[in-house]
Amino acid sequence: MTAFDSLWSTILDVGQHRSTRGYRRFAWGEADLALREWFRDCAAKRGMDVEEDRNGNLWAWWLPNGWIGEPTGAFVTGSHLDSVPDGGAYDGPLGVVSAFAAIDILRGRGVEPVIPIAVTAFSDEEGARFGVACVGSQLSTGALAPDRALSLRDNDGITLAEAMTRAGRPTAHLGVDESLVERVGVYVELHVEQGRALDLVDKPVAVASSIWPHGRWEFTFTGEANHAGATRLVDRRDPMLAYASSVHSARNAAAVHDAVATFGKIKVLPNGANAIPSEVKAWLDARAADEETLSKLVAQIESEARGHAEVDRIGLEVFAESITPIVEFPAAPRERLARALAHLGEVPVLPTAAGHDAGILSEKVPTAMLFVRNPTGVSHSPDEYASAEDCNVGALALADVMTDWVS
Amino acid sequence: MTAFDSLWSTILDVGQHRSTRGYRRFAWGEADLALREWFRDCAAKRGMDVEEDRNGNLWAWWLPNGWIGEPTGAFVTGSHLDSVPDGGAYDGPLGVVSAFAAIDILRGRGVEPVIPIAVTAFSDEEGARFGVACVGSQLSTGALAPDRALSLRDNDGITLAEAMTRAGRPTAHLGVDESLVERVGVYVELHVEQGRALDLVDKPVAVASSIWPHGRWEFTFTGEANHAGATRLVDRRDPMLAYASSVHSARNAAAVHDAVATFGKIKVLPNGANAIPSEVKAWLDARAADEETLSKLVAQIESEARGHAEVDRIGLEVFAESITPIVEFPAAPRERLARALAHLGEVPVLPTAAGHDAGILSEKVPTAMLFVRNPTGVSHSPDEYASAEDCNVGALALADVMTDWVS
Repeated sequence: MTAFDSLWSTILDVGQHRSTRGYRRFAWGEADLALREWFRDCAAKRGMDVEEDRNGNLWAWWLPNGWIGEPTGAFVTGSHLDSVPDGGAYDGPLGVVSAFAAIDILRGRGVEPVIPIAVTAFSDEEGARFGVACVGSQLSTGALAPDRALSLRDNDGITLAEAMTRAGRPTAHLGVDESLVERVGVYVELHVEQGRALDLVDKPVAVASSIWPHGRWEFTFTGEANHAGATRLVDRRDPMLAYASSVHSARNAAAVHDAVATFGKIKVLPNGANAIPSEVKAWLDARAADEETLSKLVAQIESEARGHAEVDRIGLEVFAESITPIVEFPAAPRERLARALAHLGEVPVLPTAAGHDAGILSEKVPTAMLFVRNPTGVSHSPDEYASAEDCNVGALALADVMTDWVS
Repeated sequence: MTAFDSLWSTILDVGQHRSTRGYRRFAWGEADLALREWFRDCAAKRGMDVEEDRNGNLWAWWLPNGWIGEPTGAFVTGSHLDSVPDGGAYDGPLGVVSAFAAIDILRGRGVEPVIPIAVTAFSDEEGARFGVACVGSQLSTGALAPDRALSLRDNDGITLAEAMTRAGRPTAHLGVDESLVERVGVYVELHVEQGRALDLVDKPVAVASSIWPHGRWEFTFTGEANHAGATRLVDRRDPMLAYASSVHSARNAAAVHDAVATFGKIKVLPNGANAIPSEVKAWLDARAADEETLSKLVAQIESEARGHAEVDRIGLEVFAESITPIVEFPAAPRERLARALAHLGEVPVLPTAAGHDAGILSEKVPTAMLFVRNPTGVSHSPDEYASAEDCNVGALALADVMTDWVS
């Protein structure tokens, strides 16, 4: 068993649904709290001090011998532990497990770091429960206001403030983490690839070039609830029709703009089999190669949706829940990573259309990302996959980068 | 205050949602159990014995003086107490309240019935919780098998058997009510109109001619869950697209066949804003003037849905959850009702596209229906409405019909 394998197996049971085999690890829920304990346990076994910062992000520290005072300029690596509903095993946890495995590899190599090292797990990256992604890192950089975060609600009407309180966490101190810039010399996030680019070029790992700009928009179509049997077609104001047309508008606009646009989450009221809905609320996820294209894409979808709504006398409100600008990862750390991995041959440099905490943090500190091959390209699903061999190559690559940086 | 008004006000608080003002009275839930107690209370105040039959339907009896043995050939009137999600106040309860009010009117008139009278509330008419409508009456007539009924599940995975057990009801004796044919001389259900026909002809009440054949079909579109950002359009198998196309197929097919077809209930997996769905399950409610048209309508929708699914490499299963044939109400009771209401002038005779327990029972016993004007035509919504004046005309009409039948 490698350093990676023995650690990986300790996390696989947590939050896995019996019948779907997908993971349901939602911020501040039972599985998330169990994983936070697992993180503390991993750190304790390695003699690393753990802190949970004001925004719920976990940090485990390995300080150089004789280091005095607060850590500065650290090599920070990790990812997140939460999942989408019925997500895969790798998205997030692979980065955290690889980070601890890299620590073990450095210890095995007898590396004595002269620069502080931290393993991190950022809180609520997927936004599966409260609808906003990267809550922990966005709070720390100031991209998300604490008041707005605390009033976010899950599908049961529970606010983030209530969920944190139930989990025994204080909520009064949420907000910008002023120590971030001092502390973090570089943040390197290792992540399973969410496409098939590495498989197509037959390489196990890549470094990231950029993250596409992306966002979520809430579309609320409002009609009139009525009896599905007794109401004549001509008397109906059924919001499902305008929603259905908008699903196709999104797909067509994405194709036109070489982008992606998806309605994957929907909430229907009253959602009765014999009732015409009064309301259809649907969330648009849209991403494009640059910000101008993203704006045009969403403007086109919204404009077409308004046309569909008008035809059926349906109300439509569109609310931008979150918009994340393009992230170009800085050249210096990326080139240093590539140099440290030169023994692997040419390492591909890839953009990603998925958002990450590394993208959020890049506003404040140098960041970089490593991707591990996912041969099916499937992501956010129980079928998400990386081979044990590639995971080990990934952990070793992270250890090589870490060794290079802290020696 | 009339006999109707004072009773009506006692039921308005039960199961009403604070913010939507809609009613959430689901079979064997808290509100349903409270309404069953309310029913017992109404009966007790009138000296009527109550029984809950083997299928959970409530019966309150007024037997002729000196009647010995089981009631036979009774004038039975009532409706149901459950609602759709965020339904209106009238659909169901109006028939039960009017029935008790009619009892009070007969008592006030000094009528001494020579034929037994029963007020009934049939269990789980809307099917809002377990997906099948008219569960109580269908079990009693044998249209629904007890094993299938008991294994129906609500959205939380709770079976009808579990829900009844939690409510303290035995489940071993569910099934055909052999006493029905003996007991019921006629079943008259008073119901708020679910269209605007009475408003258009400016009349307060009507008698029913027929119920359109109707049914529910479960459409399950199966694709592949994936990351909404990182998955190229060409790699997707997103079931939302085929569903969206099918929504329009249903509407168009309904228009072609002078019928109605509605997708009003949908369940998406995993229903995450940044996940392409693995599955979209949607329920089609379809109704037409005759059975041949209904078959053609559903066949066309299913065939088009299969076409849409195939284009996107989506699986599709279609399951007929329930199909109810046309009900032609028998001429004899209808004509007797019309005669008893001759003092109201010409009473309109209307078909309805909504299903009712009276339709289910008509397979076994004579049935008839009275409709009370709903000026907006809105149904299955908090906006459902009947004026206090029309409700009183309805209760008086029911009392006139009852007086005529039992004197």
